[in-house]
Amino acid sequence: MSTQALFNVAVVGATGAVGEQILKLLAERNFPIKSLKLLSSARSAGSKISFRGQELTVEEATPESFEGVDIALFSAGGDVSKALIPLAVRHGAVCIDNTNAYRMDPETPLVVPEVNIDKISEHKGIIANPNCSTIQMVAALKPLYDRFGISRIIVSTYQAVSGAGAKAINEMLRQSKEVLAGNPANPDILPVGSLPVKHQIAFNAIPQIDKFQDNGFTLEEMKMIRETKKIMGDDSIEVTATCVRIPVVYGHSESVYVELKSDFDIGEVKSLLADAPGIALVDDPDTQSYPLATDAAGKNEVFVGRVRRDLSNPRALNLWIVSDNLLKGAAWNAVQIAEYIAIPQA
Amino acid sequence: MSTQALFNVAVVGATGAVGEQILKLLAERNFPIKSLKLLSSARSAGSKISFRGQELTVEEATPESFEGVDIALFSAGGDVSKALIPLAVRHGAVCIDNTNAYRMDPETPLVVPEVNIDKISEHKGIIANPNCSTIQMVAALKPLYDRFGISRIIVSTYQAVSGAGAKAINEMLRQSKEVLAGNPANPDILPVGSLPVKHQIAFNAIPQIDKFQDNGFTLEEMKMIRETKKIMGDDSIEVTATCVRIPVVYGHSESVYVELKSDFDIGEVKSLLADAPGIALVDDPDTQSYPLATDAAGKNEVFVGRVRRDLSNPRALNLWIVSDNLLKGAAWNAVQIAEYIAIPQA
Repeated sequence: MSTQALFNVAVVGATGAVGEQILKLLAERNFPIKSLKLLSSARSAGSKISFRGQELTVEEATPESFEGVDIALFSAGGDVSKALIPLAVRHGAVCIDNTNAYRMDPETPLVVPEVNIDKISEHKGIIANPNCSTIQMVAALKPLYDRFGISRIIVSTYQAVSGAGAKAINEMLRQSKEVLAGNPANPDILPVGSLPVKHQIAFNAIPQIDKFQDNGFTLEEMKMIRETKKIMGDDSIEVTATCVRIPVVYGHSESVYVELKSDFDIGEVKSLLADAPGIALVDDPDTQSYPLATDAAGKNEVFVGRVRRDLSNPRALNLWIVSDNLLKGAAWNAVQIAEYIAIPQA
Repeated sequence: MSTQALFNVAVVGATGAVGEQILKLLAERNFPIKSLKLLSSARSAGSKISFRGQELTVEEATPESFEGVDIALFSAGGDVSKALIPLAVRHGAVCIDNTNAYRMDPETPLVVPEVNIDKISEHKGIIANPNCSTIQMVAALKPLYDRFGISRIIVSTYQAVSGAGAKAINEMLRQSKEVLAGNPANPDILPVGSLPVKHQIAFNAIPQIDKFQDNGFTLEEMKMIRETKKIMGDDSIEVTATCVRIPVVYGHSESVYVELKSDFDIGEVKSLLADAPGIALVDDPDTQSYPLATDAAGKNEVFVGRVRRDLSNPRALNLWIVSDNLLKGAAWNAVQIAEYIAIPQA
């Protein structure tokens, strides 16, 4: 009989859209928990959350919260991660961070288990969870990278409002009702809560996710460009991204053009995708089958379809990649990492 | 005092979404009309439409309808165009066709006035109006093509449901209400009315517009690829397209990556776009200004923004191009062509 090690786990941002999914997955996966601490901002502290039939009280996250914690999952915003993670690490916790705070830190592995699980062992207390739109793309491209090599990626995204949090979901649903009733949308949150200008998201497409950088790209676009190179471990891959918010609740979709380094057989491409871990190939033009955000919502897989050889470049492929941005794009990827830490050879 | 020539005009498909906009534009532009004939299928014949204060009765389109007609604007579907246009041409009418029936016919000019107005004079009775998603893209790219040359275009579209007609608009609005009320969407029209499988469009993104071809691309994607080369008059331009329907009522948006043939200054690119006829540059990251479908709806211009040099290829640009698919994408482009025919040097 083997003795299963048990862990003291903390979830920071437990009341947020991603935190809620993390708790659901920890319960579903029967994660080896000794104790579970739910942490949040002072504002949400005191709320009650049920976990495996037990009612837990959310506590305010403070430096002392991490005493005795083995594994801490952070999804409470970059500022919270920057303030608390160094203290949690000093207390001996391994921190899995869902925010942008440490992703490009050279000391911090940026991990998508299907792509670079080997990097986890290099951690110095922090493992970063990549941006949602990056995770699903690199997970789908990894089997093609390994077999053919990739020289260039051009991606346009169709991103769900849940990526901007529960408030953005409510805003989109509220606006939709208003516009359907013939009233003005009165935008209040999107595209970026902390910026002054707001745009209608209901029945619209907003080509801005996160703040603009000096080079004219948004931070979301730069995340896709930089994180893809870091996760693939290959700075030679050229990446271009245009990130767009559309009125979908759950599930990011991506139109991806990818140039491979060698000739390929389209049947082999489809087989590689169908057999890859965590990937589901949904691709049959005859039955009008392709991935849809509404089908991907609530599922852990990355769905790939519309796989076709480019007509202008025989070494290029076009793909349509869809996944639930709160699951594989955030909570599920983080819980996968936690499982690799907790359960060696998981 | 000059004497203005007046024309006998017929609008075929007068009761459809595009026909309605054509009539509105003919009135607004004070088109030189001697007589106006409104034609439709037998089903819609008998309905009354008001034009410049006069009530007109819609008649069923028959071969005899075109006797004495000088200019006929067709937007009643490809089958109607194929059946009636040859007869209308024999009656001496110049036909401006909004459908896919004659676009790739080598004898038929495919015209976007801002791009290739010189081709109009080559017509043999038929001038084809390009596909909506093609028109706005080539109109925006033409000034860059003339100055720098274009070697490659990779476009992903975010297309409005009005491109699939009034029924698709109603379907999307009905589904939105149902889903907001917690009911199933019960899709009935999209993605393609004549195909068996239907998908939810409310709060979703459907990567299929029109039927699949044997090469894995949809007909909409092939239209963008073929028509771009024909309108630009340059088969050497490599084009890749992924066409996606999203829950927007009016206004197609496009994420466009374009490789130029020579070095460029980004300031000059913006000046060329700002000064180009029919183009409006909306591009200021500091004020979060970029084109939006909701802003473009009801306007004739093609709006361009998010103009930025590609980070991976210094000769490439990224653009966000938005226009009302029923106006510049259909009715306005057709009326522009009609004006060039009716009013020399217009």
